[in-house]
Amino acid sequence: MPPVDSKTIRIGLLGCGNVGGALIALIERNGDEIATRTGVRLEITRVAVRSLSKDRQVAVDPELLTTDGLEVVAGRDVDLVVELIGGIEPAREFITAALEAGKPVVTGNKELLANVGAELAAIAEAHGVDLLFEAAVAGGIPLVRPLRESLVGEQISRVMGIVNGTTNFILSQMTEHGTGYAEALAEAQSLGFAERDPTADVEGFDAAAKAAIIASIAFGARVVAGDVYHEGISDISGADISFADRMGYRIKLLAICESFDDGSVAVRVHPAMVPAAHPLAAVSGSFNAVFVEGDAVGDLMFYGRGAGGSPSASAVLGDVIDAAVNLRKGSHASLGTFTRRRIRSIDEVSSAFYLNLEVADEPGVLAAVAGAFGRHGVSIRSMEQDGLGDQARIVFITHEAGSPRFAPRSRS
Amino acid sequence: MPPVDSKTIRIGLLGCGNVGGALIALIERNGDEIATRTGVRLEITRVAVRSLSKDRQVAVDPELLTTDGLEVVAGRDVDLVVELIGGIEPAREFITAALEAGKPVVTGNKELLANVGAELAAIAEAHGVDLLFEAAVAGGIPLVRPLRESLVGEQISRVMGIVNGTTNFILSQMTEHGTGYAEALAEAQSLGFAERDPTADVEGFDAAAKAAIIASIAFGARVVAGDVYHEGISDISGADISFADRMGYRIKLLAICESFDDGSVAVRVHPAMVPAAHPLAAVSGSFNAVFVEGDAVGDLMFYGRGAGGSPSASAVLGDVIDAAVNLRKGSHASLGTFTRRRIRSIDEVSSAFYLNLEVADEPGVLAAVAGAFGRHGVSIRSMEQDGLGDQARIVFITHEAGSPRFAPRSRS
Repeated sequence: MPPVDSKTIRIGLLGCGNVGGALIALIERNGDEIATRTGVRLEITRVAVRSLSKDRQVAVDPELLTTDGLEVVAGRDVDLVVELIGGIEPAREFITAALEAGKPVVTGNKELLANVGAELAAIAEAHGVDLLFEAAVAGGIPLVRPLRESLVGEQISRVMGIVNGTTNFILSQMTEHGTGYAEALAEAQSLGFAERDPTADVEGFDAAAKAAIIASIAFGARVVAGDVYHEGISDISGADISFADRMGYRIKLLAICESFDDGSVAVRVHPAMVPAAHPLAAVSGSFNAVFVEGDAVGDLMFYGRGAGGSPSASAVLGDVIDAAVNLRKGSHASLGTFTRRRIRSIDEVSSAFYLNLEVADEPGVLAAVAGAFGRHGVSIRSMEQDGLGDQARIVFITHEAGSPRFAPRSRS
Repeated sequence: MPPVDSKTIRIGLLGCGNVGGALIALIERNGDEIATRTGVRLEITRVAVRSLSKDRQVAVDPELLTTDGLEVVAGRDVDLVVELIGGIEPAREFITAALEAGKPVVTGNKELLANVGAELAAIAEAHGVDLLFEAAVAGGIPLVRPLRESLVGEQISRVMGIVNGTTNFILSQMTEHGTGYAEALAEAQSLGFAERDPTADVEGFDAAAKAAIIASIAFGARVVAGDVYHEGISDISGADISFADRMGYRIKLLAICESFDDGSVAVRVHPAMVPAAHPLAAVSGSFNAVFVEGDAVGDLMFYGRGAGGSPSASAVLGDVIDAAVNLRKGSHASLGTFTRRRIRSIDEVSSAFYLNLEVADEPGVLAAVAGAFGRHGVSIRSMEQDGLGDQARIVFITHEAGSPRFAPRSRS
């Protein structure tokens, strides 16, 4: 695609919810400064919405509005497309059409990227246009660009992220205020951090989609949401939280992406015991953070707001400016290749494990449990026990062991 | 400059110390993977060193070595120059010559950038080539690229950084192990974290240079090292550390860059009381972190290794790949403009203050001190007092107040 001559880059916006509205406001507020700094003036020329009559937080010129996404994508007055409608279809159709027309696309759609990201990247590459998606992984936190650009020469062995603000808020409330799970969830819902149906967050689906995207970028590997083992936080009890504290840990829902010397990768989401002195342990409330372990660079962490209209709009705007500047230069960023690498199943991943057992409070029980660990070759790092009337609760942290699933508590 | 046809980008390296040696090793180790991912093969074709006979950590083909930096810059077999010699001259001469010859430059030279960065940026812009310097600010932490690219559309109001690993190590030892200042400094020296003459680190000169660069990038303002007020940590006592702890703070040496609505900026380095729950408080040992407050994005933090051969080489390599890819495309990144903005003096900056006074332990002293605060319109937020035999130590934290310098302890 030839460089666009004009200094103005005209944006077609698909979706005008929280993030879209915040993007419009941000461009209005900072547009002059952006033009001064980058030489590019941004103008939103078309906006596709589901309903023309809905009240919006941000005033949008009614003449820009349409319900036809393809009309926006094909518009002669649209140089660049921002997709914020979410879900797979029709987002995929719109993005494909834009890329095939040589128009760069900025999207915050994690579900789409975690499922057909590699295919979309190939289309973008074939047409020599940008496909940028900083907002899809960790909201406002610059993560995708540092991984793709700053760390492209780095061998990254592991990425561990707190990438879901809802679950981190719930776990933080449970840890800091002793709130129960149900109450903390209700609080998250009343504050707008959790949906009325919280399944996607609390069962780890959202984090799994983000983990797939992170692994793809960090390792140049083809990983989709379906490759990611995930467990949520709904089984975590106040007792788990306080045992963790006694043993020097914080419970966090982590997305863990690992690359192994044999060329395989493992990507999983589950609650994990994070040592209290680890930087991820201090990430509290609805904040997100991603911890990266590189060969040469050592440990890095990126911290910030992982969701919300305004932080996500900031990430979208960074991508829009990047794509707009590239468009003016007739250039584009390469997404690189996503090679097929063997994905390890959760049974092939070894880890230390936390187990919480309720047992009869009688002589010989601990010996019996310890014997079972011994027969299966699992060694115990630490143990704590509390009486519960007739019952006792014993928690164990094992040394590194393979195969058993992470079990926040016994389900018997 | 036209795109270079070959896939190979030939690098002229100025300086082959810790970082240069680590860069050579990193390119050797990861070169194939980089070529696969980016389509660019990196080759080091010339290396300028001070002495040809010195033993090096990394084996360098003796045929590449020269003591003539200008010969490297002018080499017909050099497409891109990496400057790692430090200091202002001859680094400035070499970089200027390279940029004027249309060769992109990657540098980790904070002293140079904090003094003549804007001039060098203008030369790079005039010749349409890249001048990249990720390693100059926070070692391996991707910070310059996120600020310049991801956050270019953001109004950044404040950046606060722990940007000197030596002083953070010393303060961490004092806080976590009750070590005295002199002992902690000696430990830092024996571990190689501090120079034999530690002045540049402990008196805040190093942090001030980095603060000038951060302010320039974050605010698009022309700020040089001489504009930065700085105080070091050599007056901080164990008593200060433990009072801070009692009051819920950690003492950190912070580089603080602020942008005000009237168009002015303030840039300063001094020890600061960081609330224990703030993410910067948990940044321990020789790690660095930079906390960014943006209008739309909210709070961000970037954490990692701020120094060391290997982390810095990782940052240099990220820049080299960026510049190499741009060179192949015939493109370059714009540094934007650095406008002249009024720099506020330290007397114009208001802040809460921590004061530590040794006074006679007799009735009426506290009233006299409190009276003095009152007469100068300074209100007290909190106070702690300890007996010291005939003397007493009183520490105060004030509400926000202007004009007095931050005083880690009375010097009377």
